[in-house]
Amino acid sequence: MARDRRIEELFGIDLPIIQAPMAGAQASAMAIAVANAGGLGSLPAALLTHEQMRTELAIIRQQTGKPVNVNFFCHTPPEPDATREAGWRTRLGPYYAEFDIDPAAPIPSSNRAPFDEAFCAIVEEYRPEVVSFHFGLPNAALVDRVKATGARVLSSATTVAEARWLEARGCDAIIAQGNEAGGHRGIFLTEAIGSQPGLFALLPQVADAVKVPVIAAGGIADGRGIAAAFALGASAVQVGTAYLFTPEAKITPMHRAALKSATDDGTALTNLFTGRPARGLMNRVMREVGPISADAPAFPTAGGALMPLKAKAEAAGSADFSNLWSGQAAALGREMGAGELTTALWADAKARLGEA
Amino acid sequence: MARDRRIEELFGIDLPIIQAPMAGAQASAMAIAVANAGGLGSLPAALLTHEQMRTELAIIRQQTGKPVNVNFFCHTPPEPDATREAGWRTRLGPYYAEFDIDPAAPIPSSNRAPFDEAFCAIVEEYRPEVVSFHFGLPNAALVDRVKATGARVLSSATTVAEARWLEARGCDAIIAQGNEAGGHRGIFLTEAIGSQPGLFALLPQVADAVKVPVIAAGGIADGRGIAAAFALGASAVQVGTAYLFTPEAKITPMHRAALKSATDDGTALTNLFTGRPARGLMNRVMREVGPISADAPAFPTAGGALMPLKAKAEAAGSADFSNLWSGQAAALGREMGAGELTTALWADAKARLGEA
Repeated sequence: MARDRRIEELFGIDLPIIQAPMAGAQASAMAIAVANAGGLGSLPAALLTHEQMRTELAIIRQQTGKPVNVNFFCHTPPEPDATREAGWRTRLGPYYAEFDIDPAAPIPSSNRAPFDEAFCAIVEEYRPEVVSFHFGLPNAALVDRVKATGARVLSSATTVAEARWLEARGCDAIIAQGNEAGGHRGIFLTEAIGSQPGLFALLPQVADAVKVPVIAAGGIADGRGIAAAFALGASAVQVGTAYLFTPEAKITPMHRAALKSATDDGTALTNLFTGRPARGLMNRVMREVGPISADAPAFPTAGGALMPLKAKAEAAGSADFSNLWSGQAAALGREMGAGELTTALWADAKARLGEA
Repeated sequence: MARDRRIEELFGIDLPIIQAPMAGAQASAMAIAVANAGGLGSLPAALLTHEQMRTELAIIRQQTGKPVNVNFFCHTPPEPDATREAGWRTRLGPYYAEFDIDPAAPIPSSNRAPFDEAFCAIVEEYRPEVVSFHFGLPNAALVDRVKATGARVLSSATTVAEARWLEARGCDAIIAQGNEAGGHRGIFLTEAIGSQPGLFALLPQVADAVKVPVIAAGGIADGRGIAAAFALGASAVQVGTAYLFTPEAKITPMHRAALKSATDDGTALTNLFTGRPARGLMNRVMREVGPISADAPAFPTAGGALMPLKAKAEAAGSADFSNLWSGQAAALGREMGAGELTTALWADAKARLGEA
């Protein structure tokens, strides 16, 4: 059967591979390398200030003429909750004592910022060809402004219900994020993480439920996964963890080492680092406090109290308190440049898909 | 690329589709229908007495000349634990009161029996072409006796480590059971169910780790899933939940109705019904007591105390206390005969795989 090429046409890209936006792990360099190789490079905005965002976008526009994706979180920042914060610090108290950190010292605030008017103005200025959101969509007025720039709008669905919700609100394509995926679950209509479907089950059901093209995400790290995603109804794939093996990934040597020795069953969903469930490689704090803890404050504030522990532990060469985001297929990762990886992934997939 | 045909050759079957053995949900009729359609039909032994087993095998041998698979659980029965049993009955006490059941009445014992000398003698007598195990393997002496009959031996791996363990102990093929699968997880080297990989991640990693052919299971319910499984490195697929939609499935009308309205995110892993994690459609007891409860006694005894509740609720038309086993792709199920389904699945998959 002829392969669905709707995503290549919709985004104006050469290969149906999207580099997953990975906040905190990459910036313009990775997006540029992927774009120049013909895939869709992505710039994650969640951990950038508005000024950093402009700088990164300016670099991208300077270094590639290809389409690019800019990704935003669209959570509602929580009301401060001093009681919950205090409870969380009490829960982490023994670790503060172990690392000789003053438990009364002010803790850094987590700076994951949602999409807002100011970010929207930057989109209107730089006009990225694709804008993707995580945790649903911003309000309709902001979505309308983004669409008015000509940008294609995407968001992630972790269930069929979320896919239908996103399609009804105007998404041009939907990312079906299987439970295998690393980093934050896009989940937004429910909190039932124990019922999240794996990509094998999710993808064909999403493809049956919506008319817009579907992008498969979660556990895809080589040509086999890309070919399988197309068999299940995808029009493109989004690959994350595999790009963490590239030199363009801005991750710690400890994170890189942990990825290189990752196993299929070495990750879990955890809410300790931000307050929302995200998949990472299991480490000490996940084993001892979670991986899911009811004590963790609301997204994105939970991570603040962990930061001093993370800093002290990392300085001592330990990733015991670090968020080591990873999907379940990290063991398939290969070390090469992000552009080279994009080319290699598609060459392998193409052969399997029977394309010339 | 030419498709891997090792499983068809190894088992002497026409189509690389294995009907998953589903204890309590089917017997010889389904196995015969699938075998006669060219797939591998399976007879689950876990809930049968030795005498029932002989009867079912005699019927199979009478009604088909095709190869058949017989499946056994191989857990070690637990020591009786009166304290834990009492705690479990206390936990369920409010439900006993609600349904006006005498909390002091003796509870039925759960009769899931492991593979033993007597079952092995039946294998030696009827010589099924394939013998599959769940929860690892029986002791080496019993495995040797089974292999001496000429039977091909299979078991399920939920992780790469389990796959390697099974290959090292002589399995002729390995079922890679993704987290999407319905019914009992085959998990046996760990209890960390939160880290179980989805099929998309598990399958290529198992295929890379072992030399024997790999059978994909979990979330496969149509030709798309079969084609995707081959793309990821499978030599065959095992399909379970889709066969629960056939008239050969011996499930309650309530279970059948629940499957017909299943959604992608409507299941969870639960240990309430047997003591081991198994995937089923969410219902009242799973929501209120679990889905995972540390109070549930060891496998297979947990279900005993639920049986009176299940009986009373079902008599009143409710599946609130019933085990409604289902994988995450139940919504892809179609109502047709088990033989017809086997033929339809392969016809669809063949077209997608580009075979004549």
